[in-house]
Amino acid sequence: MITIECTTTLITPEGSSRIQELVLEEKPVGIFLNDEPVGTAMVLEKDLEELAVGYLFGQGYIVPGNRIFEIQVCDQGRVNVYAEATLRKDEEMITTSGCGGTGKIARRLLTERFPELAEFSLNFDQISELVKKTLTWSSLSQDTHCVHGCGYLSSGGFKICYEDVGRHNAVDKLMGSIFLGRFSPAGAAYTTGRLTSDMVLKCARMGIPVVLSRTAPSSLGLEIARRAGLTLGAYVRPGRVNVFNAAYRIIS
Amino acid sequence: MITIECTTTLITPEGSSRIQELVLEEKPVGIFLNDEPVGTAMVLEKDLEELAVGYLFGQGYIVPGNRIFEIQVCDQGRVNVYAEATLRKDEEMITTSGCGGTGKIARRLLTERFPELAEFSLNFDQISELVKKTLTWSSLSQDTHCVHGCGYLSSGGFKICYEDVGRHNAVDKLMGSIFLGRFSPAGAAYTTGRLTSDMVLKCARMGIPVVLSRTAPSSLGLEIARRAGLTLGAYVRPGRVNVFNAAYRIIS
Repeated sequence: MITIECTTTLITPEGSSRIQELVLEEKPVGIFLNDEPVGTAMVLEKDLEELAVGYLFGQGYIVPGNRIFEIQVCDQGRVNVYAEATLRKDEEMITTSGCGGTGKIARRLLTERFPELAEFSLNFDQISELVKKTLTWSSLSQDTHCVHGCGYLSSGGFKICYEDVGRHNAVDKLMGSIFLGRFSPAGAAYTTGRLTSDMVLKCARMGIPVVLSRTAPSSLGLEIARRAGLTLGAYVRPGRVNVFNAAYRIIS
Repeated sequence: MITIECTTTLITPEGSSRIQELVLEEKPVGIFLNDEPVGTAMVLEKDLEELAVGYLFGQGYIVPGNRIFEIQVCDQGRVNVYAEATLRKDEEMITTSGCGGTGKIARRLLTERFPELAEFSLNFDQISELVKKTLTWSSLSQDTHCVHGCGYLSSGGFKICYEDVGRHNAVDKLMGSIFLGRFSPAGAAYTTGRLTSDMVLKCARMGIPVVLSRTAPSSLGLEIARRAGLTLGAYVRPGRVNVFNAAYRIIS
């Protein structure tokens, strides 16, 4: 069950009527690494393997190259990941606004070295495919208006779209799938959400060379893109990209 | 400085041109309670007093009735709050997806008692005023496409709108201003963002009786509204509210 049907009261100055609406199910999922609790995310309960691995990557607990031994998606909102990793409690705040620590976020963002980006460029046929297939991946977004999508295109065409309540979680799911070797990082990610610092940071750390958004970047998102050298495109439509950094990877 | 001007490359299948864009400045702000670091939020650096108090309230560190002795907004992204409060480390994860702890969020959400809601109802003149004044509060949203607004109306009319990168932070700023006694909780909050669990939870804990959104609620947001008895309206326009709970406070 991903949506819940409910009856609502539509009120206008002229009166009221009863209508049916679909509401997206938001659930807390606890993520454990080697039996240690790492965090709880409010998510769309779908693609939880990818979510858990992407979340651990986003928080800095695991890095590409670390081996994943087992992933258990349990009942009652818990995912156990067994992996080669070191718990680094002092780095927990990197990507999550609202977690412990102060200032460290900015200092790390400004100094961390990124891996070399994979080689990749894309043309407007690919951009159009990526945007259209992401936006029509499922009916969840139009049914509930409560979902962000993150689509991915690499060599050979469109690969997948992940959906979640939070734009960050949808990106985490994509990071998880790339971490798990399902897709190459040589590709373009397209999100329906804004490219704030944490969104761009994860892509840069994964080595993804092209990051696109239906909407805008923030200043820190742009700063990270510049430092990593990745192509950041905003306000992307099938026939239009507004490129804020490294335009050479978009072929007109 | 809240926005940064930058030159971008607009690319279409026909070619490219250089244009100017405004990008919203996103900054990490560390919040300290009685000299103890509580957390860091990625925010729009504006209304930081309200943000810090609302953040501490949202995380469960302070509750209405606790005295605030002093708030120092320092340079370099730090706010010190001195207040009557108890640090409760084990409750840090209540509102923030991505923080430590597992499952506890759900259990607390499902069991916590809310304060009695203030008495308040609103008609379509007020709804229209609240929506229109929130959406035209500043040009930041249309300039940068990277801002959420949270407007507030109580006895006497529209009061204020807070803006931030995150819809959660904009709501935190409103919570802070009500906590500080600047406005009564007997009113209606209107957010341009979705009503997920944390958004509705803060309003319920503050005793705000009407919570409205330009867009959709999630299942947990709705569940909290039902348990608190607050009026949850979605897809709100000046002449239309789709009420998911407690429709009697909307006068058609």
